Amino acid sequence: MSSRILIEDATLVTMDENDGVIDSGNLLIEDNIIKSIFTAAEDTPGDVKVIPGEGKVVIPGLINLHNHAAMTLFRSYADDYPLMEWLTKKIFPAEARLTEADVYWGTSLALLEMIRGGTTTFVDMYYFMEQTARACQEGGIRAMLSQVFIGTEGCSEGFNTFEDAIKFIENWQGQDEGRIQTILGPHALYTCPPDFLKKVLKETEHLNTIIHIHLSESKFEVEESIKNFNKTPVALMDELGMFERQVIAGHCVHLNDEDIDILSKKGVGISHNPCSNLKLGNGIAPLQKLIDHGACVGLGTDGAASNNNLDMFEEIKLCSLLQKGTLEDPTAVPAKTAFELATRGGARALGMEGHLGVIREGAKADLAILDFKKPHLQPHNDPIANLVYSASASDVETVIVDGKILYNKGEFLTLDEERIYHEADKCAKKLRQ
Amino acid sequence: MSSRILIEDATLVTMDENDGVIDSGNLLIEDNIIKSIFTAAEDTPGDVKVIPGEGKVVIPGLINLHNHAAMTLFRSYADDYPLMEWLTKKIFPAEARLTEADVYWGTSLALLEMIRGGTTTFVDMYYFMEQTARACQEGGIRAMLSQVFIGTEGCSEGFNTFEDAIKFIENWQGQDEGRIQTILGPHALYTCPPDFLKKVLKETEHLNTIIHIHLSESKFEVEESIKNFNKTPVALMDELGMFERQVIAGHCVHLNDEDIDILSKKGVGISHNPCSNLKLGNGIAPLQKLIDHGACVGLGTDGAASNNNLDMFEEIKLCSLLQKGTLEDPTAVPAKTAFELATRGGARALGMEGHLGVIREGAKADLAILDFKKPHLQPHNDPIANLVYSASASDVETVIVDGKILYNKGEFLTLDEERIYHEADKCAKKLRQ
Repeated sequence: MSSRILIEDATLVTMDENDGVIDSGNLLIEDNIIKSIFTAAEDTPGDVKVIPGEGKVVIPGLINLHNHAAMTLFRSYADDYPLMEWLTKKIFPAEARLTEADVYWGTSLALLEMIRGGTTTFVDMYYFMEQTARACQEGGIRAMLSQVFIGTEGCSEGFNTFEDAIKFIENWQGQDEGRIQTILGPHALYTCPPDFLKKVLKETEHLNTIIHIHLSESKFEVEESIKNFNKTPVALMDELGMFERQVIAGHCVHLNDEDIDILSKKGVGISHNPCSNLKLGNGIAPLQKLIDHGACVGLGTDGAASNNNLDMFEEIKLCSLLQKGTLEDPTAVPAKTAFELATRGGARALGMEGHLGVIREGAKADLAILDFKKPHLQPHNDPIANLVYSASASDVETVIVDGKILYNKGEFLTLDEERIYHEADKCAKKLRQ
Repeated sequence: MSSRILIEDATLVTMDENDGVIDSGNLLIEDNIIKSIFTAAEDTPGDVKVIPGEGKVVIPGLINLHNHAAMTLFRSYADDYPLMEWLTKKIFPAEARLTEADVYWGTSLALLEMIRGGTTTFVDMYYFMEQTARACQEGGIRAMLSQVFIGTEGCSEGFNTFEDAIKFIENWQGQDEGRIQTILGPHALYTCPPDFLKKVLKETEHLNTIIHIHLSESKFEVEESIKNFNKTPVALMDELGMFERQVIAGHCVHLNDEDIDILSKKGVGISHNPCSNLKLGNGIAPLQKLIDHGACVGLGTDGAASNNNLDMFEEIKLCSLLQKGTLEDPTAVPAKTAFELATRGGARALGMEGHLGVIREGAKADLAILDFKKPHLQPHNDPIANLVYSASASDVETVIVDGKILYNKGEFLTLDEERIYHEADKCAKKLRQ
């Protein structure tokens, strides 16, 4: 028998092309799909769980395009350091102490935070990815997971290899009723030389997976690429044929006009991570320009060590404000565009447009319900502007992924909150010593 | 008989010069004062209300240096417009319809939001300020209130005059056991010509109030000042003798080196409002430079029409991130400095250092207690970094002003939340027509 949930009489922010906001709408979920959306009273099936929607706003579940979930263990562990000191003296040594259990508990903590904040799909890149997958399986979230690997000696040695990454894909692709998708995670151009990437491309052709990579994050990275290869990282990726595959490129901060052109034409999925880019001193990506060129952009938080939270509402607000402020143009990245990035934009980058990041009949039932009866979400002037400029993760009251309720009114239905706090804290204590 | 509250076994983020963070500290409030802070077990008086502090972080109540509280009615009413169109076609016409009741209910809504978010003192500037004062009196918050006035014809005509502002000061100064302080609010240099400001200065000498004014917010304002007076707004204010009085200057975005020098030397209280400055396309103030020059800086949200919330935690995070990102220096405005701006910095700007914005014996009992048992505030790596880079207004669980609990675990003890939502929504509906 099918399981059914009816959200009754709520404001639906559909993000669908044709509609915008439906006031007093009803939304019926059947199994893992949005079955119907209607405004008039209809007979609803008897065996249905009803969620009263008065004063509530329903949005498509948010899509976090770039994360290192287990790094919640390093949240507020080392801030305000110069970048190289932060990496070499704080993060790399701590990561060298990482165990599989750390990644499991760190990811579990990230899942609590993401689910509670309305994120229903995330893209991850880290070590010991099978532990991340295990945690996701338990949590019930939708995840695109890449076991990171590098092609040079250096930074965090002794960790996962390209072969481990292939094995991870073979073992986990499509697990958990398809909620777990595996992708390929070469770390970055400065840790994966061109010949290595060519080999990676060739040997993974038959897998046809998305590639997830850091790209043009720092000035240093771009300068090194130009020095060594006489090309920007984006131009080099293009020359290597990487963009003939579906790519999600994290950051893309330092871009010239040719880069923007390449990224847009090749439909590269860009994860814009404004918070992390500021915090690490990397700068501000040319988001408005990318949008103007029709680039495929979504939003990401990056890991909690450089953010320090996984609140997608912060990224949504910040991506708009930064463009307005630096372009001295209050019309830049208006509210609806900013919210699109975290929903439809992310779905487009993942090749899932129409299925994720949208409320429409036939789409996956990945939804977040916000309680707007809060001082900062009153009065009722404009729900999308309120979502973008005033809401935060904590306004999310209910989260549904694939038709299952994962979080409701402070209660996690799939994860053991207390245990995760306890274990994650133990892991963090060990790692920071 | 004195009233006593004991916060037991909490993490105290004192922001005091000598201490930093006290783990497992106890804090005793007697009447409206922090009576004692101690770590060892002590005999506590019998007639004391105990607040268990395990897993909680106590901070000095936050100080919002620049607000137009009643503008919550215009939250998400008109976003993403060019500045002049926003003002002349949306805000000014709506403000021309404002009534005293609107200001009362709009302020009440702002009080709910500020109190719930840990703000215990705010500086305001708006019309019908006696209505703001009335709401503050009911809410029990600490407020520095200025009835705005202008010296030119134009923008919102028919509103309050300089004489009204004086009358407001005479009627309200020190009301509500001193929690309501009145200050003088000439709107800005571009609406108050030099001769008018001279008159204002002279005629208010005997009042010895702080002056609250918008200053160097937009490029346009600075260019006009140079065109008309051959001086930047800051240099002009200095020449007029305004800075011989205690001044709180809102914004201070567009400053040259001489301006920074004047502001620092004269100890002008600067309200840095990063969110609003970005949203209206005004840019990013040179915060790090101001700090390096020893300027007296605090933080403000500005009104909700240009933010769109009153969450001081957002300003704290943003002020740090913007400097790191634009200076390409992750060490800029470190966590403790950012948090100082919203506490000690604000107190210093108000001439209340040692009394507000700090947890120390003898200081006012204005406190916020945060619940850190939240996914985004775990693990326990660094409470100040968590406050700055990960917390939000919604993490505040209890708020105490002048020794009285105003908010506790979702419940407002002085304000009627439901009624305020209802009335504010009615006002907003009328105003946007």
